[in-house]
Amino acid sequence: MSAPVLALVGATGAVGTVMIDIMNSRSAFPWGEVRLIASARSAGKKISVRGQELTVIELSPEAFDGVDIAMFDVPDEISAEWAPIAASRGAVAVDNSGAFRMDADVPLVVPEVNADAIADRPRGIIANPNCTTLSMMAALGALHREFELRELVVASYQAASGGGQSAIDRLYAELSALAGKGVGVEAGDVRSTLEAAGLPISDSPFPAPLALNVVPWAGSLKDDGWSSEELKVRNESRKILGIPDLKVSATCVRVPVVTTHSLAVHATFAREVTVEAAHKILEAQPTIVLVDDPAAKRFPTPADVVGEDPTYVGRVRQALDFPNTLDFFVCGDNLRKGAALNTYEIAEVLAARI
Amino acid sequence: MSAPVLALVGATGAVGTVMIDIMNSRSAFPWGEVRLIASARSAGKKISVRGQELTVIELSPEAFDGVDIAMFDVPDEISAEWAPIAASRGAVAVDNSGAFRMDADVPLVVPEVNADAIADRPRGIIANPNCTTLSMMAALGALHREFELRELVVASYQAASGGGQSAIDRLYAELSALAGKGVGVEAGDVRSTLEAAGLPISDSPFPAPLALNVVPWAGSLKDDGWSSEELKVRNESRKILGIPDLKVSATCVRVPVVTTHSLAVHATFAREVTVEAAHKILEAQPTIVLVDDPAAKRFPTPADVVGEDPTYVGRVRQALDFPNTLDFFVCGDNLRKGAALNTYEIAEVLAARI
Repeated sequence: MSAPVLALVGATGAVGTVMIDIMNSRSAFPWGEVRLIASARSAGKKISVRGQELTVIELSPEAFDGVDIAMFDVPDEISAEWAPIAASRGAVAVDNSGAFRMDADVPLVVPEVNADAIADRPRGIIANPNCTTLSMMAALGALHREFELRELVVASYQAASGGGQSAIDRLYAELSALAGKGVGVEAGDVRSTLEAAGLPISDSPFPAPLALNVVPWAGSLKDDGWSSEELKVRNESRKILGIPDLKVSATCVRVPVVTTHSLAVHATFAREVTVEAAHKILEAQPTIVLVDDPAAKRFPTPADVVGEDPTYVGRVRQALDFPNTLDFFVCGDNLRKGAALNTYEIAEVLAARI
Repeated sequence: MSAPVLALVGATGAVGTVMIDIMNSRSAFPWGEVRLIASARSAGKKISVRGQELTVIELSPEAFDGVDIAMFDVPDEISAEWAPIAASRGAVAVDNSGAFRMDADVPLVVPEVNADAIADRPRGIIANPNCTTLSMMAALGALHREFELRELVVASYQAASGGGQSAIDRLYAELSALAGKGVGVEAGDVRSTLEAAGLPISDSPFPAPLALNVVPWAGSLKDDGWSSEELKVRNESRKILGIPDLKVSATCVRVPVVTTHSLAVHATFAREVTVEAAHKILEAQPTIVLVDDPAAKRFPTPADVVGEDPTYVGRVRQALDFPNTLDFFVCGDNLRKGAALNTYEIAEVLAARI
């Protein structure tokens, strides 16, 4: 058969832009045609993909005719409406929104963990996980295959860019207002300094100052005080790893980092684990970089991982008081593996199997 | 007997300065005399305490003659040498360094948790806990009395000021170098921007950039990849709470916050817990402020807690998959309750009992 046709819906958005970078830098390129799709506002725009200038076309049912795989990097409500339309036109929709992730008829896929799940897609839709969950999946998937994961306690250090461009702009604006002001150690004047600079919290995408602060909130309020982000970490981890009774507690916290999510992970397994065995397993994963030599001050930090495809893992320790338990720290670029890259990798797996 | 004499060793340091603020703002003042002690370099300096100008005197054995209680806010090695000298001269030494915390003959005290432990002090020394541990002790102590604590998984969000004034200066210098530079989302250029601004990491008290970053490291390297800070959280929690077999895993992470440590806490108890019961207990503590209404975007953040004496607690949730377990978030000013205030409160308890 002829080379498959790939569509990218949301080609001009933040994740769509990273997606085009990925297409331009990937060594293999299995596509016969790439179709860039966006809202009417962006239609007509020219974008270069592998040296070819493509014109963005407007989202419509006909835009999917002849498309084999349609990647969606758009808000939940656009995906909810349009992914089924793409599927009805014969495309497989690979969706990066939250619209379908917990749909029992939609596989939720991280290729290095559960690539085979893509085969069973009754709705013609495959979902890409939430970026926070994704950051730890390659590591947990590899360790789970060997040691059988049972329990997970996670605290996140999430970057501003998880909230989109307006969130990044806000963080920079706050930093500029605070830098050099010598905000006192004793006086808690971050809020008042921001207000005086014309940056009241009411205008922010975050519910509190983010610069020189951390904010223990991401997403929307769900039952019993849990945030939507914390429940995604729980429910999506269970689905991707295929462990429906996995015990999970997550606390999701936004930190003043531009891009790359970090997670402190406390993972308990059914079988005995050692740091040595875990190192061996993690080092063998093509999508993981192990950086774990604290004596040489080597451990992952988000600023060093921006723009990188792999997940970085370090600080691997055997828990002193919990049997079969490892504590470790992971960093993953939430715009690459956490969003565009994983979606694209799903499309690549599909291309090889169509 | 006459009103006790209080000495403050390290009166001109960062914590000593906060200590003098506390003395000046405290409603009761049980001291007959306050003696300010520092190194020869600072001797002769005048500091106002409750409207009276005091002259700093040089550290010497004789400086402790007639002193009932001597508070030490100095580096470990100074405390190790001088606290026993103060004790030999008849003072009770209350030490804020790490020199004596795990000494079996030295009580480690948080007054609202284990005030009675001060009675048994064979060396004449009482230790003040590490600031990270302290941030969660009031909350855990109160919950432990009711539900019996068994297990603790903790991830920290530690402020720069835990590393002293040079650490604060470094954070501000990094912020100024990065703010307004529009450090790219795609390019991980925090390190190179700092280097270009004359701020190489080799000059930093932190092992990686702290601005626009988080650093999963605090303290020195101990056995099996654990940091000294992580082991302090474990060992000091056990000692203060009087639970020698408490299971603890901590991951300590530095964040770009000036002052106030935060902790994501996952605490498992012997008895059944509910959010409602926990709220009731926490609200009843005089040294805790409960800020827990995410629907109204109310939760503690470190920038809002700077300069405050109480510990702020919020995001209290019943773990969905772990029996008898609460997840919550605490913020405590690491220079006040985390250092000066708790030391001073120990001295106040002693004054009432001498």
